[in-house]
Amino acid sequence: MSAIKSIKSIAPLFDRVLVQRVKAQAKTASGIFIPEANVEKLNEAKVIAVGPGMSTQDGVKVAVSVKEGDKVLIPSFGGSPLKVSGEDYLLFRDAEILAKIQE
Amino acid sequence: MSAIKSIKSIAPLFDRVLVQRVKAQAKTASGIFIPEANVEKLNEAKVIAVGPGMSTQDGVKVAVSVKEGDKVLIPSFGGSPLKVSGEDYLLFRDAEILAKIQE
Amino acid sequence: MSAIKSIKSIAPLFDRVLVQRVKAQAKTASGIFIPEANVEKLNEAKVIAVGPGMSTQDGVKVAVSVKEGDKVLIPSFGGSPLKVSGEDYLLFRDAEILAKIQE
Amino acid sequence: MSAIKSIKSIAPLFDRVLVQRVKAQAKTASGIFIPEANVEKLNEAKVIAVGPGMSTQDGVKVAVSVKEGDKVLIPSFGGSPLKVSGEDYLLFRDAEILAKIQE
Amino acid sequence: MSAIKSIKSIAPLFDRVLVQRVKAQAKTASGIFIPEANVEKLNEAKVIAVGPGMSTQDGVKVAVSVKEGDKVLIPSFGGSPLKVSGEDYLLFRDAEILAKIQE
Amino acid sequence: MSAIKSIKSIAPLFDRVLVQRVKAQAKTASGIFIPEANVEKLNEAKVIAVGPGMSTQDGVKVAVSVKEGDKVLIPSFGGSPLKVSGEDYLLFRDAEILAKIQE
Amino acid sequence: MSAIKSIKSIAPLFDRVLVQRVKAQAKTASGIFIPEANVEKLNEAKVIAVGPGMSTQDGVKVAVSVKEGDKVLIPSFGGSPLKVSGEDYLLFRDAEILAKIQE
Repeated sequence: MSAIKSIKSIAPLFDRVLVQRVKAQAKTASGIFIPEANVEKLNEAKVIAVGPGMSTQDGVKVAVSVKEGDKVLIPSFGGSPLKVSGEDYLLFRDAEILAKIQE
Repeated sequence: MSAIKSIKSIAPLFDRVLVQRVKAQAKTASGIFIPEANVEKLNEAKVIAVGPGMSTQDGVKVAVSVKEGDKVLIPSFGGSPLKVSGEDYLLFRDAEILAKIQE
Repeated sequence: MSAIKSIKSIAPLFDRVLVQRVKAQAKTASGIFIPEANVEKLNEAKVIAVGPGMSTQDGVKVAVSVKEGDKVLIPSFGGSPLKVSGEDYLLFRDAEILAKIQE
Repeated sequence: MSAIKSIKSIAPLFDRVLVQRVKAQAKTASGIFIPEANVEKLNEAKVIAVGPGMSTQDGVKVAVSVKEGDKVLIPSFGGSPLKVSGEDYLLFRDAEILAKIQE
Repeated sequence: MSAIKSIKSIAPLFDRVLVQRVKAQAKTASGIFIPEANVEKLNEAKVIAVGPGMSTQDGVKVAVSVKEGDKVLIPSFGGSPLKVSGEDYLLFRDAEILAKIQE
Repeated sequence: MSAIKSIKSIAPLFDRVLVQRVKAQAKTASGIFIPEANVEKLNEAKVIAVGPGMSTQDGVKVAVSVKEGDKVLIPSFGGSPLKVSGEDYLLFRDAEILAKIQE
Repeated sequence: MSAIKSIKSIAPLFDRVLVQRVKAQAKTASGIFIPEANVEKLNEAKVIAVGPGMSTQDGVKVAVSVKEGDKVLIPSFGGSPLKVSGEDYLLFRDAEILAKIQE
């Protein structure tokens, strides 16, 4: 039986970044609902948790470049998928995250 | 003839991590049993044993990032399968373990 | 819903360079419009934003070789595509940018 | 003509490990013999001989992590096969050996 | 619209070398013109511009091994193609240039 | 015309090892000749000559681990074939040689 | 038009070695000419010119291991082909040259 009570219990290892993809708008500007198959998958995601970072050959820990709560751009492909309580999440390596989205 | 008396006799080498996948619930909430072929394979696993870690080029031993008893997320693919006393186990490299599951 | 208000809110990570491809002329010298399918895709692009650079093994930050506003040559293939407010953008690693175009 | 008098004359080079796969039980608990094609190949092996180890870039010799007589887990694929006096052996690199089996 | 006024405005980055392939003779010794499809593509090229060179891990800049005006041998395949004012150019990494042609 | 008078004139470069495969017995114990197509190719070889070794990044020459006259185990695939005076030879890199055969 | 007056004008870059394959004998011992398609391509070659060598990370130039006039063994595949004055040449990296042929 799953030991995962909530996504809060996932602690990424190394330089991994746990993100949740931002859901695309499922209705048009005028309020008409778009069938799910036609909703374009966005590359925007919210950072849920980050790992402690990788160590260099000299043992210095290099912090991950994003933090919990950051909005980020993720690549269209890759990442390890994870499903918790019916929601989809992805785990990326820090260097795979393309950009931060500033608000 | 197999020399493996129990899974306790397996001592992973280097930075390898011996895990056992958490079994998915085989019955529905209302108690109806799900045929095994339909049980979704979870990516959750329990750490059974860990290796002594890898050494850096300078000879410093780098400990494995998880420990016996930890609940972890493993990738959907990869790992070396192992069967002991009818139970399935997997061996991963430390860096392949995605995240710890905190309880 | 998308958190990206404008392309100005995209902050590339590491040594990434956010560029927008220069649009090819869609009409001939004599003013006749060329159907979009026949417009040749140019490898020229304008740098919209750059990341903070990568760090060497010794922790020294190496600045990106181009800057915002630069005109550059990009390779015909590769890069991570991004669409913001109906406009197409690409994210490249610094070393993938072929040349600067001096004016 | 073969110069190999016995398996004892094979001295692995570098970090190579010469192993012999443990033979699976060819009869059932009740004593009925299983045809060879149906005998499952075990991943258990006995270490016959080990190389002197690899040298680091600084010239320090790194000993192999297993020794003659050790029982080990080997991966299902890989290794260089060798046949001596009608018996099958395998040569692996030290880092390919998955785990030691403790008795 | 293209920002490239002339090939002189292209400044290669890193260790890149901008070359133009030498055109093969399109007529025979006796003056008969050879149809373009039958003209053999030569591997000779003229260096138009070179980048500032790559930096070593210690930050030392390594100059490119050829210079503007050099005649060089280029490999039959590879390089990034570029068209400026109807002329074809190629961008190579310094280490891909095979040889200098001395006159 | 070939400049190779005898196999003795071949001086391997770097860490290369020139070997000749040991010929499998072409007749059975009772003296019956086996047609050549049925003779199993052995992985045993005799070292004919070795190169001076490779240099480390710090310029220290690392000697090859085998020497002329050694009997060695070679992998089933790989190596550069060479034919001199009708005899077949192979050139391997030192690290590709699997084991020494001690007599 | 080709700028290459003679093969003497080719100066290999880095650790490249310019060689010309030794031509196989096109007639049998008894003087009968062998049609060109049946002449076996030899792996022997003569060194025509060598590059200045590669530099290590510390900037030390490492000389090429062969010199002009050397007879060498080249691999059956690889190398960059070059045709000058109707003759075929090949450019290899130093480490691709298999062995020197001593006379």
